[in-house]
Amino acid sequence: MARADRWGQIVPRKRNPDRVVHYRLPTEVVFGAGTVAQLGSRLVEMGLSRPLVVTDRGVRDAGIVEKVLASLEGSGMRAAVFDGVESDPTTRVVEGIRDRLREEGCDSVVGVGGGSPMDAAKAAAALATNPGSPLEYVGRDKVRSDPLPTVAVPTTAGTGSEVTMFSVLIDSDSGSKVSIGDTRIMPRLALLDPELTLGLPEHLTAVTGIDALSHAVESYGSVWSHPIAEGLALRAIELVGECLRPAVAAGSNRAARRGMLMASLVSELAANSTRLGIAHALAIPVGARHHVPHGMAVALLLPHVVAFNEAADPDRYARIARALGAAEGEGAGRAMERLNYDIGIKDRLSGWGVGEDDLPGLAELAMKSDNVQANPRVAGEEELVAVLKAAL
Amino acid sequence: MARADRWGQIVPRKRNPDRVVHYRLPTEVVFGAGTVAQLGSRLVEMGLSRPLVVTDRGVRDAGIVEKVLASLEGSGMRAAVFDGVESDPTTRVVEGIRDRLREEGCDSVVGVGGGSPMDAAKAAAALATNPGSPLEYVGRDKVRSDPLPTVAVPTTAGTGSEVTMFSVLIDSDSGSKVSIGDTRIMPRLALLDPELTLGLPEHLTAVTGIDALSHAVESYGSVWSHPIAEGLALRAIELVGECLRPAVAAGSNRAARRGMLMASLVSELAANSTRLGIAHALAIPVGARHHVPHGMAVALLLPHVVAFNEAADPDRYARIARALGAAEGEGAGRAMERLNYDIGIKDRLSGWGVGEDDLPGLAELAMKSDNVQANPRVAGEEELVAVLKAAL
Repeated sequence: MARADRWGQIVPRKRNPDRVVHYRLPTEVVFGAGTVAQLGSRLVEMGLSRPLVVTDRGVRDAGIVEKVLASLEGSGMRAAVFDGVESDPTTRVVEGIRDRLREEGCDSVVGVGGGSPMDAAKAAAALATNPGSPLEYVGRDKVRSDPLPTVAVPTTAGTGSEVTMFSVLIDSDSGSKVSIGDTRIMPRLALLDPELTLGLPEHLTAVTGIDALSHAVESYGSVWSHPIAEGLALRAIELVGECLRPAVAAGSNRAARRGMLMASLVSELAANSTRLGIAHALAIPVGARHHVPHGMAVALLLPHVVAFNEAADPDRYARIARALGAAEGEGAGRAMERLNYDIGIKDRLSGWGVGEDDLPGLAELAMKSDNVQANPRVAGEEELVAVLKAAL
Repeated sequence: MARADRWGQIVPRKRNPDRVVHYRLPTEVVFGAGTVAQLGSRLVEMGLSRPLVVTDRGVRDAGIVEKVLASLEGSGMRAAVFDGVESDPTTRVVEGIRDRLREEGCDSVVGVGGGSPMDAAKAAAALATNPGSPLEYVGRDKVRSDPLPTVAVPTTAGTGSEVTMFSVLIDSDSGSKVSIGDTRIMPRLALLDPELTLGLPEHLTAVTGIDALSHAVESYGSVWSHPIAEGLALRAIELVGECLRPAVAAGSNRAARRGMLMASLVSELAANSTRLGIAHALAIPVGARHHVPHGMAVALLLPHVVAFNEAADPDRYARIARALGAAEGEGAGRAMERLNYDIGIKDRLSGWGVGEDDLPGLAELAMKSDNVQANPRVAGEEELVAVLKAAL
């Protein structure tokens, strides 16, 4: 008889030990305090001279764009700036950036910010060299010509967009989230300077940190995981376990900021090749329908998703728990609940306006994500509703 | 007062927690049983049509070149073959391959074999597009023009050359080992098919396996290590701990062969960006002066080097020991001695003609390697002599 737990029957998804592994990292990674000052000389080395800096007003107000421009000007470059990226960028904004790139005669794009500016920069760079609307490139490997060379400069420690092939956008017409997935849109260079994250507010530090953790945990759990990703993901989980509480407690803690920015990078170096799991499958519709920021949606779901998955692969989740620094016998799911609590994430989905009646619709949308196929425990709509319910 | 052990005073080399991390992987990795059959179509995708297969007679006799040619011919390519790479390839052989590339009008190079054919292929591809002798490119970042596109197909599980920036050669005039280090010479594609390693003899499986382990251990120990490398290196050590004994015991064990080829890959994905330590600093002159094959030289030295280093960073080496599956309290150095023994490596340096009088000269040569600067315990000539003596 099949085993069961409070979520229902435990059906582990089969792993194929002979699966072919593909691993690609077209992005050069440079990581360290003060490295933003290298931006100008790096562009010069690549033969580029006319970048468009793509960012948002928050990043500009934090004084980060000044540092970026200082480096560019120091290398004799006159940069243009587009600072109108909104949180969850739309296809319309991407078209706007594309038009700006053309008007200004730019030869490169520098995305500066969290996931939104970086994703918008990646998509606009592709659109500058490929015809039509962003929607034509939604899906996998649809980009035909190489995008303009792109540099990503993250200012939050969570998304990992600087090393991913994904650009997540809102379709301006339908309002739904869409994703362009193509190794061609991976940045040429990721310049990670933890000093840029020192001013990140407590709450953003917390939710973006959990986003990084979720990439590592879901990549490690994925049935498409492989030793490259496993090694990276476990190390990222350790870094979050060591550094997230201190980074939230004292934003000026340089070692903790460095650790978290590294965790965010390393978790996506893992996840980019493995896909994720049902926390991400669910977070996308929750975010889109109920206007929950992505990191928050993930943070609210992750402990319950992990509790659901643990029974399907106890050894793997015990390693996650150890890497995160869980107490003896605590389990990964409960360790994540405690982490949320300690860093001030005490919300529930219901506080964001999600009601019990919404759950079947959210589950139905989530089922369309290929992340469901990567999840280590088989989950249908019924199970997804149960997980959502636990997070209500 | 400084602590001391049987090797002398324990001086840990200082780690700089703010060190800038660079990570680059221009090589696309494809790993899986049967993937050698993709070679032809992959070259076609890259727009290539006239490859030179660079290999050695052992690989040819094992029937592996046939599989390579079958895939190339299946994609309509007429490949040329150079099968004259010797173990520890010379600069003269590389020039010979360069001449062959020109005579045959080749547009690409496919290195098939262990480290020697892959290193020769990488150097020859660079020489085909850069003037002069291989010696002009010895050192770091001396290659000016992009080499011919190179694909690496390893047939041993140890060197990791398929993802490194190094080509180690013998200077045909002086007889000394030289190294070309340049990210430009990294292969465009690494095609890793564990089926190709099934016929590798027991002894070669053992010494190449320890070579892979040494890359992971020295990369993890390196003072230039960083979380990307640490995660990868620990995972590679685990794989060696799980798979090397079974792969040596039964060469037809597909899971063990897959695990070892993955370990070899993953260990170099770590080591390429961290340098190594004194096992490699010492193995180079030991190999060159006393004609000890590289893997064997490393295997004879590694347990003693690790025993020397353990005291300088006990926590780090305890993690290595655990990852390797050491018994409680055994320590990493002793676990490696036991592994050597179990896989049939019972030699000592003295059995290879190294005498006590040779040690100062070897230590002096080793000191020239930058790997000495990466080693976690400060070591001068005296300490290197002591380590060599322990391996005599």
